Amino acid sequence: MQQAQTRMRPFLSAQPNFTMGSDTPRQFLERCLEDLAHREPEVGAFTVVNIECARQAADLSTLRWKAGRPLSGIDGMPVAIKDIIDTDDLPTEHGSDLYAGHRPLFGAASATALRLAGAVILGKTVTTEFASTEPRGTRNPWDLNRTPGGSSSGSAAAVAAGMVAGAMGTQVVGSIIRPAGFCGVYGYKPTLGGINRGGSLDMLSQSCSGVLAASLADSWVMTREIVARVGGDPGYVGVTGPMTPPPASKPKRLALLQTAGWSILEPSAREALDRAIATLVQSGVEVVTRSSWPDLEAVEETAAEMLPITMRINAWEWRWPLNAFMARNAAALSSSARERADIGMAMTQDDYATAITRRSEIRKLYAKLEAGCDGIISVTAPGAAPIGLGSTGNPIFVVPGSILGVPVVTLPLLQSEKLPLGLQIVGFEGQDAALFAIAAAVEAILTPV
Amino acid sequence: MQQAQTRMRPFLSAQPNFTMGSDTPRQFLERCLEDLAHREPEVGAFTVVNIECARQAADLSTLRWKAGRPLSGIDGMPVAIKDIIDTDDLPTEHGSDLYAGHRPLFGAASATALRLAGAVILGKTVTTEFASTEPRGTRNPWDLNRTPGGSSSGSAAAVAAGMVAGAMGTQVVGSIIRPAGFCGVYGYKPTLGGINRGGSLDMLSQSCSGVLAASLADSWVMTREIVARVGGDPGYVGVTGPMTPPPASKPKRLALLQTAGWSILEPSAREALDRAIATLVQSGVEVVTRSSWPDLEAVEETAAEMLPITMRINAWEWRWPLNAFMARNAAALSSSARERADIGMAMTQDDYATAITRRSEIRKLYAKLEAGCDGIISVTAPGAAPIGLGSTGNPIFVVPGSILGVPVVTLPLLQSEKLPLGLQIVGFEGQDAALFAIAAAVEAILTPV
Repeated sequence: MQQAQTRMRPFLSAQPNFTMGSDTPRQFLERCLEDLAHREPEVGAFTVVNIECARQAADLSTLRWKAGRPLSGIDGMPVAIKDIIDTDDLPTEHGSDLYAGHRPLFGAASATALRLAGAVILGKTVTTEFASTEPRGTRNPWDLNRTPGGSSSGSAAAVAAGMVAGAMGTQVVGSIIRPAGFCGVYGYKPTLGGINRGGSLDMLSQSCSGVLAASLADSWVMTREIVARVGGDPGYVGVTGPMTPPPASKPKRLALLQTAGWSILEPSAREALDRAIATLVQSGVEVVTRSSWPDLEAVEETAAEMLPITMRINAWEWRWPLNAFMARNAAALSSSARERADIGMAMTQDDYATAITRRSEIRKLYAKLEAGCDGIISVTAPGAAPIGLGSTGNPIFVVPGSILGVPVVTLPLLQSEKLPLGLQIVGFEGQDAALFAIAAAVEAILTPV
Repeated sequence: MQQAQTRMRPFLSAQPNFTMGSDTPRQFLERCLEDLAHREPEVGAFTVVNIECARQAADLSTLRWKAGRPLSGIDGMPVAIKDIIDTDDLPTEHGSDLYAGHRPLFGAASATALRLAGAVILGKTVTTEFASTEPRGTRNPWDLNRTPGGSSSGSAAAVAAGMVAGAMGTQVVGSIIRPAGFCGVYGYKPTLGGINRGGSLDMLSQSCSGVLAASLADSWVMTREIVARVGGDPGYVGVTGPMTPPPASKPKRLALLQTAGWSILEPSAREALDRAIATLVQSGVEVVTRSSWPDLEAVEETAAEMLPITMRINAWEWRWPLNAFMARNAAALSSSARERADIGMAMTQDDYATAITRRSEIRKLYAKLEAGCDGIISVTAPGAAPIGLGSTGNPIFVVPGSILGVPVVTLPLLQSEKLPLGLQIVGFEGQDAALFAIAAAVEAILTPV
């Protein structure tokens, strides 16, 4: 446990000081760099940093704030970019030796938007191999013997340790919400297609770009500033709503989603969740469960299918580029990647059609819940981050938000074994702003004054 | 006119000779190389060729055919790949100086699949800048003073001149069907998502990979062999159906789509179309028009919107990467690309939402036609390819198939000014095999014995 050294640096709440002149983006960055100097050697959140460029960008931002003309709500915000997202000034290696030293010609949509908005890009963060299962050594800042979760491992660890205020992540199974929960940071996976994925090696149909950040407000503004510049995925409107954080709106009714992981939920995690629910109920929020609501029970009954269906869909969709990788240098792939290639190669188009059809059916069952509640709550994992760096943890609680294609936020409000665990709130398709309004209210209710 | 030298080299019909031993893939390739030597200097279909690699691949294919073990239905087929599709052994320049000499690390999904299927990849074909409007100099093999159409300019010209049997193309407005029509080759744009676009700089929501080939059968088998290996776009089943060409099936009822281009249809093109329709009717196929069918009239009434909506959708979706290109070197972009960037930058998310919502409505109107006819027929352009290389021609007749997201084939059966003009047949979502069955019947009816 190194909790004393592990704290986040929210950016939006610092902005009034930029305006008043008592703080500057450069000074903000220097505080992040202190944490980087102290913690990065043991945490290993970054594949590469560019401190000089970051300082130059922060100085330019400082001038803009002093002139009263910031480029955006995230002008000067120190951010990091997951290393499956192309950058034109830093290598992009996708967590694989196959891309060692790779330098893309142009930055990805999100990276380009962040730069245009004046954000200070400090470096690239460690991803598991191709944002899939194979870990790449990042440690959890709260306990160096534990995984930070994955696949957005470095993004979660860097935000948790105060090295940046926000970071780009991507999620197809649980790659934003799971590490955010394990590292005690805010995580946001938008409605499918909510942030333009262009220039990210992230082609799966369930993949979604999102953010990890030091506050709920930082998560929202970072996302909106990106989407206003480069939109959502082609064919999707992208995340809509105000450019400033949606005001808190107390939910009338939340539903507890037990998922297929309920039976393995750690006692201390269960206790923390029960306590949170009791506090919500005490404040006047109704919390319903599967036993009292047939429509919710219908979704819960599909929970056991969610991970296997997701894995089959991913295996088919990974046929390419895995076949191109295998042709070049199969030995450079992890055994888990080669296994995924084998599963994909054994599938037929019909198998894939069956899997995506079932996914559509499950999404329709879930969509019915919108008429009966304001959102779904759950934990982000069965307990604290597991000991060891060999696995990024069990995705059983986070796969529902992924397969359903709906927006999810996680709040760092729970603990298990005195380590962080996320309280995730799952919303409805396209209702990202409403989800943030509810999440802000839940956070206010559950945060001791 | 150089019609005498301009003829296609269908591949599937040559295969019985490979089996009998009277021909080989290597000999087939050598015939293509003769045409390449004679025609390429004046046509300019290729950005790069690799003759030695092609000969090696053809020799290996020859051995497989001799052993009775071809890898696929396109083993040994000489093909070319549009230069917005990544190849790992040849440069990929996207028709732009910004990518001069660019060497991707891995081949795109379609390129990888073609190689795994044993096809002989001869080279990369000229594309307009980023597969958009700016031409890159290829000439029409039928008349060197005329455009071959675009954006798959080189793919159409290479197939028309017999340099390859098939070529990859992509279409977002009319980039497969238009050049196929102008060059007198077969073109096939699948149902949206029908061929995996991975590794192609081709992110627009209306974009679709497809093929240009020397016969209808070649088009089908080339597509199916690709899709069987790498699927459709993630989230889409991809083109389904038999691995061999669907048998001809005479349509009962076809509908003539006049589109917004009817008033500018050249008299000789109109005459050719009328003659084709008369022959179809004579053979027992009913052909209906807007005046006799309200559901068709409802679609025709949207025709004038189709191009402006498409252009607005594309402009928004081009914000990125155009903003990244502009930041690097705006002077390296054509004025048409810079204009598109300006249009996109002036749009809001709401504007984009309006455009894609309207597109969905138009698609629903069109889907109703499936209950009342077997397919739609039309021409591919108002007339023969225009004189001059400054424009790739009017897309007014081909934009419907693009915005609707449905499968389209064009048959080289019409003429205007004694130059090629395509007869396009437009099908229904996911019904690509049924479309090929109808197209085969139409071709048989309209081809003089």
